[in-house]
Amino acid sequence: MSVVIENIGQLVTFDPAEPERPIRTGAALVIEEGRVAWVGDAAEAPAADTRIDAAGAAVIPGFVDSHSHLVFAGDRVDEFEARMAGRAYTAGGIRTTVAATRDATDDELRARLHHLVVQARAQGTTTLEIKSGYGLTVVDEQRALRLAHELTDETTYLGAHVVPTEYTDDRTAYVDLVCGDMLEACAPLARWIDVFIDAGAFTVDEARRILLAGRDAGLGLRVHAGQLAADGGVALAVELGAESVDHATFLTDDDIDALAASARDGDGTVATLLPLVEFSTKQPYPDARRLLDAGVAVALATDCNPGSNFSSSMPLAVALAVRELGMTPLEALAAATRGGARALRRTDAGHLGVGARGDAVILDAGDHRHLAYRPGVPIVRHVLVAGALVGGRAGTFDPWPG
Amino acid sequence: MSVVIENIGQLVTFDPAEPERPIRTGAALVIEEGRVAWVGDAAEAPAADTRIDAAGAAVIPGFVDSHSHLVFAGDRVDEFEARMAGRAYTAGGIRTTVAATRDATDDELRARLHHLVVQARAQGTTTLEIKSGYGLTVVDEQRALRLAHELTDETTYLGAHVVPTEYTDDRTAYVDLVCGDMLEACAPLARWIDVFIDAGAFTVDEARRILLAGRDAGLGLRVHAGQLAADGGVALAVELGAESVDHATFLTDDDIDALAASARDGDGTVATLLPLVEFSTKQPYPDARRLLDAGVAVALATDCNPGSNFSSSMPLAVALAVRELGMTPLEALAAATRGGARALRRTDAGHLGVGARGDAVILDAGDHRHLAYRPGVPIVRHVLVAGALVGGRAGTFDPWPG
Repeated sequence: MSVVIENIGQLVTFDPAEPERPIRTGAALVIEEGRVAWVGDAAEAPAADTRIDAAGAAVIPGFVDSHSHLVFAGDRVDEFEARMAGRAYTAGGIRTTVAATRDATDDELRARLHHLVVQARAQGTTTLEIKSGYGLTVVDEQRALRLAHELTDETTYLGAHVVPTEYTDDRTAYVDLVCGDMLEACAPLARWIDVFIDAGAFTVDEARRILLAGRDAGLGLRVHAGQLAADGGVALAVELGAESVDHATFLTDDDIDALAASARDGDGTVATLLPLVEFSTKQPYPDARRLLDAGVAVALATDCNPGSNFSSSMPLAVALAVRELGMTPLEALAAATRGGARALRRTDAGHLGVGARGDAVILDAGDHRHLAYRPGVPIVRHVLVAGALVGGRAGTFDPWPG
Repeated sequence: MSVVIENIGQLVTFDPAEPERPIRTGAALVIEEGRVAWVGDAAEAPAADTRIDAAGAAVIPGFVDSHSHLVFAGDRVDEFEARMAGRAYTAGGIRTTVAATRDATDDELRARLHHLVVQARAQGTTTLEIKSGYGLTVVDEQRALRLAHELTDETTYLGAHVVPTEYTDDRTAYVDLVCGDMLEACAPLARWIDVFIDAGAFTVDEARRILLAGRDAGLGLRVHAGQLAADGGVALAVELGAESVDHATFLTDDDIDALAASARDGDGTVATLLPLVEFSTKQPYPDARRLLDAGVAVALATDCNPGSNFSSSMPLAVALAVRELGMTPLEALAAATRGGARALRRTDAGHLGVGARGDAVILDAGDHRHLAYRPGVPIVRHVLVAGALVGGRAGTFDPWPG
């Protein structure tokens, strides 16, 4: 089974074999058995079983959203409305969602999760990391990972999201659980372990203990750090060789030096920026320009969750990165594809070089920069995963006119 | 031909007959022969030819986008990229688009326009004003209005967009043309006349002359003013009884008093805010809170155009109004529906009271506040115009789960 995409206005490959040529014009792309098999001048394209006419549109790698929290029940729109109005809102935050999630049936959680994943895919996300973290008991965390694992291999055990209410008076016992029985139950269903380092969540010392236990259980390491303060989490992430440190808004000079040094080693810690969170919380945005100029490896992801940001829009994350984070449109797109893949240590995703999985997005525009130029517009026309059309607005729009 | 929408999670009617009850729960809606015929408790809904199951979703009036510039060729993505990077960009701005538009064939302009209108409709816009303004000759302005008029009754003659290059040395001759032969050619195809008051466009005195000529030709009045400075345009708009003054970002205290006094008269000048422009130009946002508190009538629109903002997303305009303009989610939705209708002097649009046109949007959410809570997400599931399904993501998504 093979498919050729022809009549491409602009093909963004981010092919790691050709770093000096991220974009090709006049090119075609062939996907065979789910993998990119050929990229070259359209006039020389080999025959294929199926032909997709891109009608002059830009074709980009599918987005890699390396940070999401999609297994939950309920929503927190009241909290959102109060925050936007600058009103105090003292209800339980994450713990509100934990209570609703524990009360939900498997089918309820699965239906919501499926809906959110389909929605993300329709916006061009073809690789999606999903965390647990709204269960916070052995069975509820395990359940979240089981449900997530039905839809993605990129599952992350986040028992260390917050200390649940019932452990408020005995944090150490909860950390013991996260490193003990809960880890044992969850590790077989997870690729990653993550800890939320924050004044309202876990300390650096607690995080070290949890991450080391996760590593011993065979999991890769991810860290939430620097969302609201320079909290020492970035240094810990680099020290432990975590694959990604996420948020990374509040950083010391030493943090940036450490991330840059780690990136020079080629396989270091990626700074995953989540600008939709700052959009939805009115917090200061991270300074991607400074990170890029220092040589830090940068990714963009959504952090879609019911509290601090309920958007799953990688296109809007790209637009915000261009408006607010000091990235060029091409840098932002690279961070949302190649960067996310690097943060997940995936060489088969985030680019369209030969050998990559055939995950491509056909835009409703001839130039990838329209992702930033046309914020909010549903600009993803077709989505292919492993060469098969799976989402987007197929059939809704007329061909892109000249 | 009748249709009943049932199983509505939240029905936002903005029924002018019931201003104290903008939202109903447990309600159903019946549309007959294109008009809202009945709104009431679902248990009492009359039978209809067709039944739409909203599956618990929120139903809102279709958006009224009262300010757009969609008849043009080319784009200005290079200018956008330079602006985002803070680089100087000295190419021609609006005049670049004028040159491309004059060079385009009718079919090219029609295809682009049609594409943009379909895209707007898929995002929930059911009433759409479209301006000329990239022709700036008698035949090119007339052509733009003819093409726009194929798709909407809300056409606006904007010969006074900028002074075209060929008149740089004789502004008065261009104003003569705008008030003379060009107006005569365009008035039969337009409902409105508009002038861009700005240091780079037209003065208040020029605008007065043009607007009075337009009124004499039977056109309603709209004004672009206060985009980059308090330029006296708002006072002119109120003085002449213009139906709307658009942008309204830079205002004096007297401007606000004048707009509020005009609103108290019941049929005064609406302040139409265009926050997507500030998003796309990094200019300061207007202060909607201050306007609302002063009693000014406020509308939200997109100003979709290839220069200062190329987004047609009314949902993102609503989200920005909540984040940046100090509006509540309900105020923002009202401004994007009822407010736009008021700015266009339409009593049949922008609400779902009995007698209104059956223009409704079924969201992919149970609560209208998700428009702001989920920015960038394609949250418009179905769009009805006069009771007929015309756009949205019909068929793309599963029913909204609990």
